[in-house]
Amino acid sequence: MKNYKPKGRLTAKEYINGVLKGDRVLLSRAITIIESNLGSDKILAKEIIQEILPYSGNSIRIGITGVPGVGKSTFIESFGKHLINQGKRVAILSIDPSSQRSKGSILGDKTRMEDLANMEEAYIRPSASGDTLGGVANKTGETMLLCEANGYDIILIETVGVGQSETAVHGMTDFFLLLMLAGAGDELQGIKKGIMEMADMVVINKADGDNVRMSEMARLQYQNALHIFPLSESGWSPVVSTASAIKNIGIDTVWQEVVKFKKLVDENGYFIKNRNHQQIDWMYNNINEELKNLFYGSANIKSHLSVMEKDIISAKISPVKAAEIMIQEFKDSF
Amino acid sequence: MKNYKPKGRLTAKEYINGVLKGDRVLLSRAITIIESNLGSDKILAKEIIQEILPYSGNSIRIGITGVPGVGKSTFIESFGKHLINQGKRVAILSIDPSSQRSKGSILGDKTRMEDLANMEEAYIRPSASGDTLGGVANKTGETMLLCEANGYDIILIETVGVGQSETAVHGMTDFFLLLMLAGAGDELQGIKKGIMEMADMVVINKADGDNVRMSEMARLQYQNALHIFPLSESGWSPVVSTASAIKNIGIDTVWQEVVKFKKLVDENGYFIKNRNHQQIDWMYNNINEELKNLFYGSANIKSHLSVMEKDIISAKISPVKAAEIMIQEFKDSF
Repeated sequence: MKNYKPKGRLTAKEYINGVLKGDRVLLSRAITIIESNLGSDKILAKEIIQEILPYSGNSIRIGITGVPGVGKSTFIESFGKHLINQGKRVAILSIDPSSQRSKGSILGDKTRMEDLANMEEAYIRPSASGDTLGGVANKTGETMLLCEANGYDIILIETVGVGQSETAVHGMTDFFLLLMLAGAGDELQGIKKGIMEMADMVVINKADGDNVRMSEMARLQYQNALHIFPLSESGWSPVVSTASAIKNIGIDTVWQEVVKFKKLVDENGYFIKNRNHQQIDWMYNNINEELKNLFYGSANIKSHLSVMEKDIISAKISPVKAAEIMIQEFKDSF
Repeated sequence: MKNYKPKGRLTAKEYINGVLKGDRVLLSRAITIIESNLGSDKILAKEIIQEILPYSGNSIRIGITGVPGVGKSTFIESFGKHLINQGKRVAILSIDPSSQRSKGSILGDKTRMEDLANMEEAYIRPSASGDTLGGVANKTGETMLLCEANGYDIILIETVGVGQSETAVHGMTDFFLLLMLAGAGDELQGIKKGIMEMADMVVINKADGDNVRMSEMARLQYQNALHIFPLSESGWSPVVSTASAIKNIGIDTVWQEVVKFKKLVDENGYFIKNRNHQQIDWMYNNINEELKNLFYGSANIKSHLSVMEKDIISAKISPVKAAEIMIQEFKDSF
C-alpha cells in the first residue's frame, strides 16, 4: 500500500520544470504531491522540493489572522486585488487546523474570494488537512516554497486566530497582520494570548458608516497598548490602522506599511537574519516534534502516562520521579 | 565517584522528620541534598521528596519578577515583613539562571534583605546553580515542596525578568507579580515579550516623592493596556497598582489583591485545577527536556547538526529533509 503509485503522476523533472516555468496547473499538481501521504508521493515530493529550493524565497511572506467574523476573506480579496494592481502576483494559502478540510473547501475558498479566484495573478489554495499541526506547517511551508518558485511575489498565509497555528505561521512569515473589530472591547474577540505580541500591524476592520468613530477610538487604544510592549528584534514598532475591506478604504495603508517594514528590515539586516533563523528553526521544530512522536506514539507509554498522571495528582509520586521512570521505559524499548 | 557519600549525611528518615517538624536547620540540609549532583545524594533526595509529598502544597505560591534596578529586594523585604505581620511564615527562593551562584551569594541574598534574614518566620534561599533551566526549575520546585512541608504559608519565588526562567516560575506558582518602573515608557525596561501577559498583577514601584504623578500615569496606561488582552482562564483580571517598597506604601494593596485572587480561584475551582495541571506539566516538561537531552547530548548529532544548519541556509537541503536524516541517525544510534 505504501508503495502504491497513483496513475497520472509525472516525473519529478516534469513537475519541477512546470513549477519553474510558472505553469499554474503543474503548480497545483505538485502541491497535491506535497500534500499526499502516499509513500511514493513522499519520495517524489522530497525530490521536487530539493530541486526548487534554490529558486524559492523571493517573496514577501505575510501572515494574516483574526477570528471568524472579522472579515478576513473580504480583507484578503480587497488586499489581494490592491497588490495585483501594484503589479504583484499573489498566492493565498489558508490554514484552519480545527476543521478537516476536504476538496470541497477549495471551492469554498474560491467562492469567498470570487474576484481574486478569477484573476490570473492570484493563486488560492487552502492548506491540506493534516493529522498534526507540525504536518500542516510542513505542507504549508513547502507549498509556499513552490509558489515562490512559480513566480509569486507575495504570499498571504491566512489562519484563524483562535488556535495554535498562529505561532507556526508567524514562524514562516516576514510580516504578521492581525485583524480586529472595534467595539468588541474587553471581551477580546477570542484572540488567544500571545497573538497580539506577534503582530507587526493591527488593522481594525469594518471601519465604515456608524463604525468609523468607534474604530478610530479602538485604533488609539490598541496603539497605546502596543507601546507598552517590548520592541521586536526587527526594530519595527507595530502600527495600528483602520480599514473597511468591503469599501476598499485603508487597504493601501496596509501595503504601504508592509513596504516600509520591508525597507527597514532590509536595511538593518533583520530580513535575511530572520529568514535564516526561520529555516533553521523549521528543522529543529521537526526534530523536536518527531522526538515527541517517538515517545508519545507508543501505546505502552501512553497508558502508563495516564496512570502516572493520577498518581501525581494523588501525591503518590513526584513529577520528577514519574518522568524518570517514563524515560527509562522509553530507553528500554529500543 | 558517583557513589561517593559525603560525611555528615543523615538518613532519609532524619531529614524527613526534621522537615515535617519545622526544623529550620534540617530544612536547609535537606535542600542541600536536593541541590547536590552526587549520585548518593540524588537517591536520598528522591526518598525525601517522595515522603514529604503528601505534606506539601499548603501555601500560596507567588512568582515575582522585574528587571534589575526595579527594587525587587526592597519590595520583597517590605512585602515579606508585611506578610509576617499578618501571621504568615514566608519562604523566599530566588532564581537567576544567568549567574552561576556560589555559596557567597547566599550571604548576598541575606544582605539585600537584612530585616527578613533575621526573622524567625522568614526563610531565604537562592536557587542552586544548575546546568540547565530544567534542572534549576526541578530543584526550585522541590525546594518549594520542602518549604511547604516545613510549614511556610507563602512561598515567594523571585526571578529576573529578562530570561527564560519566568515561564518556569509561572508554571510553578499561583500568582504572578510583575514589578515595573514609571517613566521607562517605551523602552520597556528590558522585560521580555510574553512576560506581561503572564502577570496577575503589575506593581509600579518607586512611586514616591517626585515620582508619584508619573507612577499614577503609568498605572493608568498599564491598566488600559492590560484590558485589551484576553481574559485569563483563572477569570482574574490583572490589576495594576503603585507602591513604594522603600517607604512601605502600597504593600498592603498587593497582599489584598492576592487574597482577592485566592478567594476567586478557590470559589471557581481554578486554584486546584491549575495546581493539578502544573503538577502534570511538571512531569511532561521533564520528559520533553530529557528527550531533547538524549538527542542533543550526542556529540555526533551535534556536529552533524551544525553542518545541516549551513546546508539549509545555502539551500542545499530542505529543513524537513534535514530533520528526517537527523532523526534516522538518532534511531540508528540505539
